[in-house]
Amino acid sequence: MARKDSKRLRRVVLERLMRYYRWLSEPKRKPLKTVTSAQIAEALDIDPTQVRKDFGAIGILGMGRVGFDVSEVCRGIRYVLGFYQRYEAVLIGAGHLGSALMAYDGFENYGLDIVAVFDNDAKKIGSTVRGHKVKSMRSLKPFIRKHKIRLAILTTPAAVSQQLTDRLVSSGVKAIWNFTPTRVTVPPEVLVRNEHISLGLSQIAYHLTH
Amino acid sequence: MARKDSKRLRRVVLERLMRYYRWLSEPKRKPLKTVTSAQIAEALDIDPTQVRKDFGAIGILGMGRVGFDVSEVCRGIRYVLGFYQRYEAVLIGAGHLGSALMAYDGFENYGLDIVAVFDNDAKKIGSTVRGHKVKSMRSLKPFIRKHKIRLAILTTPAAVSQQLTDRLVSSGVKAIWNFTPTRVTVPPEVLVRNEHISLGLSQIAYHLTH
Repeated sequence: MARKDSKRLRRVVLERLMRYYRWLSEPKRKPLKTVTSAQIAEALDIDPTQVRKDFGAIGILGMGRVGFDVSEVCRGIRYVLGFYQRYEAVLIGAGHLGSALMAYDGFENYGLDIVAVFDNDAKKIGSTVRGHKVKSMRSLKPFIRKHKIRLAILTTPAAVSQQLTDRLVSSGVKAIWNFTPTRVTVPPEVLVRNEHISLGLSQIAYHLTH
Repeated sequence: MARKDSKRLRRVVLERLMRYYRWLSEPKRKPLKTVTSAQIAEALDIDPTQVRKDFGAIGILGMGRVGFDVSEVCRGIRYVLGFYQRYEAVLIGAGHLGSALMAYDGFENYGLDIVAVFDNDAKKIGSTVRGHKVKSMRSLKPFIRKHKIRLAILTTPAAVSQQLTDRLVSSGVKAIWNFTPTRVTVPPEVLVRNEHISLGLSQIAYHLTH
C-alpha cells in the first residue's frame, strides 16, 4: 500500500479493468446510469470486493449503496488504460490470422490503428488486405523509423519470431503483440504481450472432463 | 470455503496451470528434470507462493529445495485439465479467423480435434479448409447429434452469435469457444469461453501511455 502513486498496475488488474469497460460499453448497458460492484461481479464472475478494489486503485469511488457512476467509471478506465490516445501499429504476416486481425472491428475503440501490413511472401506482397497494400519486409525498418511506430503485431510463423522481434526492437518498437505460438524475449523497456490462442482450452478441456 | 473437496478449480487457476504446462513443455526446458517455484515464477511473472499453491491444489508437492519433478508436474496438469482425452469440435465460420484456427498447430496437444467446418456462405460451402470440406449450416444439427460433438468454436459475425449458440445448445453441445466479439448466454451446465482478442490492448495501451 506504500508507493501507491508510483505503482504500475499489474497485468491482471489491467485486464479486469478492460473487462469492466467492455461490459459497461455493451449496448444493453446503455440505459444504466449507475452500477453496483455486485452487478458487475455477477456478470463477470469476479468477486465484488475485487471490483471495488480495482476501481479504488484508479481513484474511482462509489456512492454508497447507489454504486458507481457508469460514465465516470468508463472515463476513468479509458484514461488510465490510455484508450483516449491513438497509437499506430504495423502488422507483420498477411496470412489468415493477420487478415482476421485487419478485419477486426473495434480496435479503434482502444486507440489502435494498424497503418501497414508486411509479409515476406512474394505472392502476398502488393496484394491488398482491407485496403492496405502488403509491403515487403525489406521496407519494415525504414517504415517504422519514418513513422515512429511503437507497436508491432506479429502473426508470422513461430520460427522467425525472435529474429523478427530483435529487428523490431532495434528499429525502435516499444511493444510487441505476439500472436505466434512462441515466447520472445525483449529488453526490459519493451513490452511483449503473448497471445496464446490455446489458453482457453485449459478451461474447456477441464469442463468437458469433469 | 465450505464444500472444499467438491470445489471446481477457478478459471484463473486453470489458466495458470496451462501457462506452467506450456512453459515446461518448451523445447528449451527439455534438459530440466526438476524445477523450483522461483524459476517458474520468474519466467512467467507470477508470485512463487502462488505457483506452489496452484501445484498444491492439484496434489503436486515439492521436494524441498530441489523443487518439483518436471515430468510429475506435466503429468499432473495434463490429467487435471483433461488433455489426455480427445474431444471433437465443430468450427463454425470459414472466414479468416476460422481458417487461422484450422491452421493452428498444436491443438492436438490439448486433446482438441476439429472434425468439421460449417459456414452459411454459398461461396464457401464445398470449398476446402485444411483438408476439410466446408459444410452447409443446414447439416450442423444432424452432424452434432450423429457424432455427439460437445464443443463448438464460433468465428461467425457477432450478430448471429446468440441465435447460433441457442441452436448449438439445443443440439447437445456442452462447451462453446466464442471468438465473436459478443458475449453469449447459455444454460448453467454449458461452458462459454469468450475469447476477447482485444483484451491484450489493455496492457499494450497502458504500456505505451505510461
